[in-house]
Amino acid sequence: MFSISKRSEVEPFHAMDVLAEATKRRAAGHAVVSMAVGQPSHPAPRAALEAASAALVEGRIGYTDALGTARLKSALAWHYKDRHGLEIDPARIAITTGSSAGFNLAFLTLFDAGDAVAIARPGYPAYRNILGALGLKVLEVPVTAETHFTLTPESLEAAQQQSGVRLKGVLLASPANPTGTVTGREGLKALADYCAAQSIAFISDEIYHGLTFAGEEASALELTNEAIVINSFSKYYCMTGWRIGWMVLPERLVRPIERVAQSLYISPPELSQIAAVAALGASEELDHVKASYAANRALLLDRLPKIGLAPASPMDGAFYAYVDVSRFTNDSMGFAKRMLAEINVAATPGLDFDPLEGHRTLRLSYAGSQGEIAEAVERIAVWLT
Amino acid sequence: MFSISKRSEVEPFHAMDVLAEATKRRAAGHAVVSMAVGQPSHPAPRAALEAASAALVEGRIGYTDALGTARLKSALAWHYKDRHGLEIDPARIAITTGSSAGFNLAFLTLFDAGDAVAIARPGYPAYRNILGALGLKVLEVPVTAETHFTLTPESLEAAQQQSGVRLKGVLLASPANPTGTVTGREGLKALADYCAAQSIAFISDEIYHGLTFAGEEASALELTNEAIVINSFSKYYCMTGWRIGWMVLPERLVRPIERVAQSLYISPPELSQIAAVAALGASEELDHVKASYAANRALLLDRLPKIGLAPASPMDGAFYAYVDVSRFTNDSMGFAKRMLAEINVAATPGLDFDPLEGHRTLRLSYAGSQGEIAEAVERIAVWLT
Repeated sequence: MFSISKRSEVEPFHAMDVLAEATKRRAAGHAVVSMAVGQPSHPAPRAALEAASAALVEGRIGYTDALGTARLKSALAWHYKDRHGLEIDPARIAITTGSSAGFNLAFLTLFDAGDAVAIARPGYPAYRNILGALGLKVLEVPVTAETHFTLTPESLEAAQQQSGVRLKGVLLASPANPTGTVTGREGLKALADYCAAQSIAFISDEIYHGLTFAGEEASALELTNEAIVINSFSKYYCMTGWRIGWMVLPERLVRPIERVAQSLYISPPELSQIAAVAALGASEELDHVKASYAANRALLLDRLPKIGLAPASPMDGAFYAYVDVSRFTNDSMGFAKRMLAEINVAATPGLDFDPLEGHRTLRLSYAGSQGEIAEAVERIAVWLT
Repeated sequence: MFSISKRSEVEPFHAMDVLAEATKRRAAGHAVVSMAVGQPSHPAPRAALEAASAALVEGRIGYTDALGTARLKSALAWHYKDRHGLEIDPARIAITTGSSAGFNLAFLTLFDAGDAVAIARPGYPAYRNILGALGLKVLEVPVTAETHFTLTPESLEAAQQQSGVRLKGVLLASPANPTGTVTGREGLKALADYCAAQSIAFISDEIYHGLTFAGEEASALELTNEAIVINSFSKYYCMTGWRIGWMVLPERLVRPIERVAQSLYISPPELSQIAAVAALGASEELDHVKASYAANRALLLDRLPKIGLAPASPMDGAFYAYVDVSRFTNDSMGFAKRMLAEINVAATPGLDFDPLEGHRTLRLSYAGSQGEIAEAVERIAVWLT
């Protein structure tokens, strides 16, 4: 009998397990409210849906170039001009099958087995899991109130000193999942400079751009041409299930990324690329969606502390409340399971984001509708008393 | 300045480079006929397009479970019952973002860095490139007229002996790309038994199922529950750009595959899953498409030898002619480039499929319309004289 690989022994992405359980309960007739995954309740923008519908009339949805269509790359270059005042050569843009493909392509192309990459703890679990599956060392650098919940040159330097590990890469998300941290221009610049000085690749995860409620949202592209920027249409653009994202690359990285993408992904989904072009022009509709997240956020900022679930980090951006559940439990996994089973509210145990301290935290996504979020909070409030 | 990884130094997938060049020439107004990539000219089945259109009216396209929707898994289980008389538990089915994701997930979950996997030479280049990027050893086992262009226990045994390498996996495609080889039930059984006896994982690539013109099409699932079967909606179902495929797994492999998929892909595209359910019921329309390939095949079988491009392998299945160009060139790459530049016919140099002998071969896809294929053959005929 054949054996199963060691490297597949990654942690499950618990949020996805909770989603699967929630799907089952919903199919069985339960009124589940999901705050488990970062899934906007709003559909893709109308213009995107219309563009996709029109393309279906034509019907020929085929392979595109491995790094995506010229049209979407140009539209994104225009987006950077419009939003950030930046001139980005479309040839530096790679369209990817969601940001997931962006991370995998970046890791494969930048790092060889055994190389070390720093990420924030707490942070997005797929970073850790993909890095692990690819044979890379993960240096989890704790982010706390002291460092304003972000990575800094000082914390990276300390982590390198303490571990004796020489970093090949640093990955920072801003706004961050699950902490909501927004790292401003100055903080990003300090990290980019530190990485440049040490020949460390700097990967900037900007998937929550457009969803900043406090603080200063900056792209690494404003500060350096050496950053590897990863973004997606999943969050601000409400297009999770379309699996479409992009990277902006230093020029010399484009061909290596293309070579790996050709074999590993062939091409990103064409219909999603067509819809994405239209989504880029839909900021009016999308800013309305953002306003509904802002209302959810205000509700949570008000209610959560009162029901004993104080946010453990700032909630400045993205659409997550990362809350401290230590008043109620020392086992956030069991807590999340009971909450789903007893009141049909799905949330993600902190262990996804923080293997060391996540037993005391829970992540609540507030990307749902205002009605859903209010309903969930009231169920939790009653349940906890 | 950060460095680029050694493992990203995979060969380009030349077919995708030819596709990119063809796209450029077409945008510049040239009447390009592409025989370069395995892309059906027929759109997705009407029922699939209609199902997708209807879903767009609802509009909420989101993450699904990491291994896909219950509905598509059930539909596929029904498909195996209907086509093969097999009872497959839907829980053994994993929906993937194209067969590309299936290969990546299988390789990561079955093999650790340094493990050796046998593939046929000539064969699909992405196998070799993905295996290489993941740090796996590739044992390319030549397939020739002597072995009826397929792998056999004898050829695998000889390859293990000669190389001194102990195999952890064997990957066989039937029908095969680019050779068109169809490995019948007996041949598959022999391979499955050989692998079982040696604790080798047996991966059966069945992406060209439904496109067999001569010989006996069998699924590895008819012979063993230990095979890892990979399939896709791209070829028979004409849904390349939708990026949707599936795997059928030994039960104990499901959870490891799910864990890796959760982090690496989050979920397959939802709209494509909805369309795929409908596609499974469209065999009448799809068999018409198959009949047009059969006409193309007949034309090529007749014309190619007459213009000096004799098929180098059987053309029993899939939709490729793998032809010998040694009468004209010793450099199939340059030959393909000139053909595209001079007569706007795109084909894939054999080097994609066979790093050792592919300088003397060319792959022509006949998945285009009958008009396109006839036009291309006439252009080539004139060009070669």
